[in-house]
Amino acid sequence: MATQQEQSVIRLREMILNGGLPAGCRVTETAVADQLQLSRTPVRYALTVLEQEGLLTRLDNKRGYVVSRFSADDVRGAIEVRGVLEGLAARMLAEQGAGDALRQDLRSCLEEGDAIFAKGWLEEGDLERYAAMNAGFHRLIVEASRNHPLGHILAINGSIPFAHAGSFAFRRADLGHQYRILNYAHMQHHAIVGAILDGEAGRAEALMREHANVSRDSLELSGADALQPEGSP
Amino acid sequence: MATQQEQSVIRLREMILNGGLPAGCRVTETAVADQLQLSRTPVRYALTVLEQEGLLTRLDNKRGYVVSRFSADDVRGAIEVRGVLEGLAARMLAEQGAGDALRQDLRSCLEEGDAIFAKGWLEEGDLERYAAMNAGFHRLIVEASRNHPLGHILAINGSIPFAHAGSFAFRRADLGHQYRILNYAHMQHHAIVGAILDGEAGRAEALMREHANVSRDSLELSGADALQPEGSP
Amino acid sequence: MATQQEQSVIRLREMILNGGLPAGCRVTETAVADQLQLSRTPVRYALTVLEQEGLLTRLDNKRGYVVSRFSADDVRGAIEVRGVLEGLAARMLAEQGAGDALRQDLRSCLEEGDAIFAKGWLEEGDLERYAAMNAGFHRLIVEASRNHPLGHILAINGSIPFAHAGSFAFRRADLGHQYRILNYAHMQHHAIVGAILDGEAGRAEALMREHANVSRDSLELSGADALQPEGSP
Amino acid sequence: MATQQEQSVIRLREMILNGGLPAGCRVTETAVADQLQLSRTPVRYALTVLEQEGLLTRLDNKRGYVVSRFSADDVRGAIEVRGVLEGLAARMLAEQGAGDALRQDLRSCLEEGDAIFAKGWLEEGDLERYAAMNAGFHRLIVEASRNHPLGHILAINGSIPFAHAGSFAFRRADLGHQYRILNYAHMQHHAIVGAILDGEAGRAEALMREHANVSRDSLELSGADALQPEGSP
Repeated sequence: MATQQEQSVIRLREMILNGGLPAGCRVTETAVADQLQLSRTPVRYALTVLEQEGLLTRLDNKRGYVVSRFSADDVRGAIEVRGVLEGLAARMLAEQGAGDALRQDLRSCLEEGDAIFAKGWLEEGDLERYAAMNAGFHRLIVEASRNHPLGHILAINGSIPFAHAGSFAFRRADLGHQYRILNYAHMQHHAIVGAILDGEAGRAEALMREHANVSRDSLELSGADALQPEGSP
Repeated sequence: MATQQEQSVIRLREMILNGGLPAGCRVTETAVADQLQLSRTPVRYALTVLEQEGLLTRLDNKRGYVVSRFSADDVRGAIEVRGVLEGLAARMLAEQGAGDALRQDLRSCLEEGDAIFAKGWLEEGDLERYAAMNAGFHRLIVEASRNHPLGHILAINGSIPFAHAGSFAFRRADLGHQYRILNYAHMQHHAIVGAILDGEAGRAEALMREHANVSRDSLELSGADALQPEGSP
Repeated sequence: MATQQEQSVIRLREMILNGGLPAGCRVTETAVADQLQLSRTPVRYALTVLEQEGLLTRLDNKRGYVVSRFSADDVRGAIEVRGVLEGLAARMLAEQGAGDALRQDLRSCLEEGDAIFAKGWLEEGDLERYAAMNAGFHRLIVEASRNHPLGHILAINGSIPFAHAGSFAFRRADLGHQYRILNYAHMQHHAIVGAILDGEAGRAEALMREHANVSRDSLELSGADALQPEGSP
Repeated sequence: MATQQEQSVIRLREMILNGGLPAGCRVTETAVADQLQLSRTPVRYALTVLEQEGLLTRLDNKRGYVVSRFSADDVRGAIEVRGVLEGLAARMLAEQGAGDALRQDLRSCLEEGDAIFAKGWLEEGDLERYAAMNAGFHRLIVEASRNHPLGHILAINGSIPFAHAGSFAFRRADLGHQYRILNYAHMQHHAIVGAILDGEAGRAEALMREHANVSRDSLELSGADALQPEGSP
């Protein structure tokens, strides 16, 4: 069962991504609270989360927010773009081979994640800790690929909501479910590192591409099963 | 910490796959117990497990076992072959579209697995339950692809140890670790079904191919990180 | 404009692959000549060509032929299977690296093909010369991958018509058109060798897989454009 | 045997891409003519060709050119980026299905190319005609994918020399060789259209990615065989 905060975030995000609140539309705390029949505190929280995600832009002088000019299709499209670009970076790195310093840095990321998941559940602070490790992991691979044009346009693409590495729509209210999703994503990190170190370039690329779909599926926009296991406690 | 049984299985399997016990070599309970400095009961258990895996063939008249004629390279090669063939089946199915009965059967597999993992840990009987669900899942996809030559040669390839779907080298002694591996494999099942139902054929293929590497990595023959998270409790 | 021989081959093959002549059906020179309204000499030629392709099986005592037990779907399925298996072989070879002797052998294949295409057209004997070079090229890659299970089941799969490397349905009557198709296939050989020697494993795999579609498209069963350029002289 | 013009282009391009003339370096007709021991007319021609390719930037007041700030690695990297982005566009289009108008437009491109290659050789004006058709073909696929973020960053990436569709380093002096390369590229167009119309999304993606390598190989920077057939007349 999601908290009021979580519900506010999920429902407001859905309204924006599905076009219920179109681009350019002004959004205020009071109006949203009325429409969703929630109290103003969780709505205020949701507005700041969605601003961080890039879906809302804050207006000057405390006059509220406007919906950014991105459709759900743009978000999905940009996540696909991220997938193929990061996949290419992983392939190039696997073909070139990783030096000792990079190997050590990649292993540190794996260990940092394992320290989170080895205890068997998630607790306060783990999502932030995971997000920091994850952002570092992706940055390492893109930089080590030494494809500068790729790094350049990946950064531009990353300005679209959810299209930079480590943008997840976390579900804080259901940490059992979240544990299974993030452990899956981190096992992908293990497989990616294994493929890079073994020089399995095609495999590294395929894994890195698929890895981007964790972000896409976290938005829960898909009609299909995606990565939404049932029956989490 | 592995039990004596688990240790016997892992060390004897390693001796065979690395050529320490070459193909055709006769293997008896007493000799193995001496060599590994383990008592005879766990060794007897290991011999039956490795016979089931196809690495050993039992001789008539209780005269022990001989090592089957497969090298570690053959096992790895055959797992790769399984990956590309099952990947092709998943792609063809995604391109053709899945009918209602198949969708229902695939969803049942996902639910059966979710019922195992939702409680957050593994217990007695879960590995067998997972193995049965998993074998059914793979059979569904291969049959539904309607590529008969593929089904035919996949079955022939499956006679090589660990090269049929659902051959894992389970680590019963470390169920925390095993939970993370199998939850990962089952999240791949979710992603595969999502890709098939959404008609994402290339994605379905890439996922199904990668999925075969869980078997490969379970053998722990690789020098690299593979899917071996650290620090499981 | 196809010759009578060519027409006999194409139309009889089509009748078999589309099920007009079902598996097990007996086929005689006289009956086919009547049905296609062609004289018996080109029909006799067509029967021997289709026997070589595996679509017909000759009966003892000169009693004619029967249609082999393969559908068009089986043929397509087996060509796809060949594509993914040869693709895997090319990937493994690119990852392992090619030794000097193999490099020399691959280059000899490329030169042999270039000698055919450099003159700008095809002439008597070129199709046979191409077929021999092509069979050697594919054999080199499969053997050099050192994946024995792969070689084993690829041979089994190859017993299905058009599913072994170098089975083309050549169109002898239109050598201008045939030049463009085979030059395309041979440029793929160049790209495959380039990818293997440069260690671009994922690219080598994708190229080798796609290369198998030249056989599929040569059957002209597809409804779409496939590799059938218009307006050949 | 290349003409003096062709030689000037190839050698000057090589000096820039290999860093012999570093970014920011000023380049004048006289200095280049001296260094390459060629007369000034072909050098003047080469300078305009390389300006069009983006490798040189013209200075105001007829003071010559400077080398643009791109390395050979940037060019290769950006061509790879183009490959994966156009590949993604082709995949999305194949998954969504092509409407009648688009099918007709794609077929027109194929016919336009076939009209060039059906005569069996290239003549005056064919390279320009091919380049125009080719640019249209790529634009159709990217636009029809309806992935706006992709179109946006593909355009940015295209500002790097040779990284927009249809940048080839044509070899005008050897039209027999050029015929074989471009016929290969156009047969890829046929295969791409076939895959899109048949809904073979993974195949469409792989073909479109590989297609970008024709640009890369036209630069002749690779040490390996690439697409450089021997013995063209």
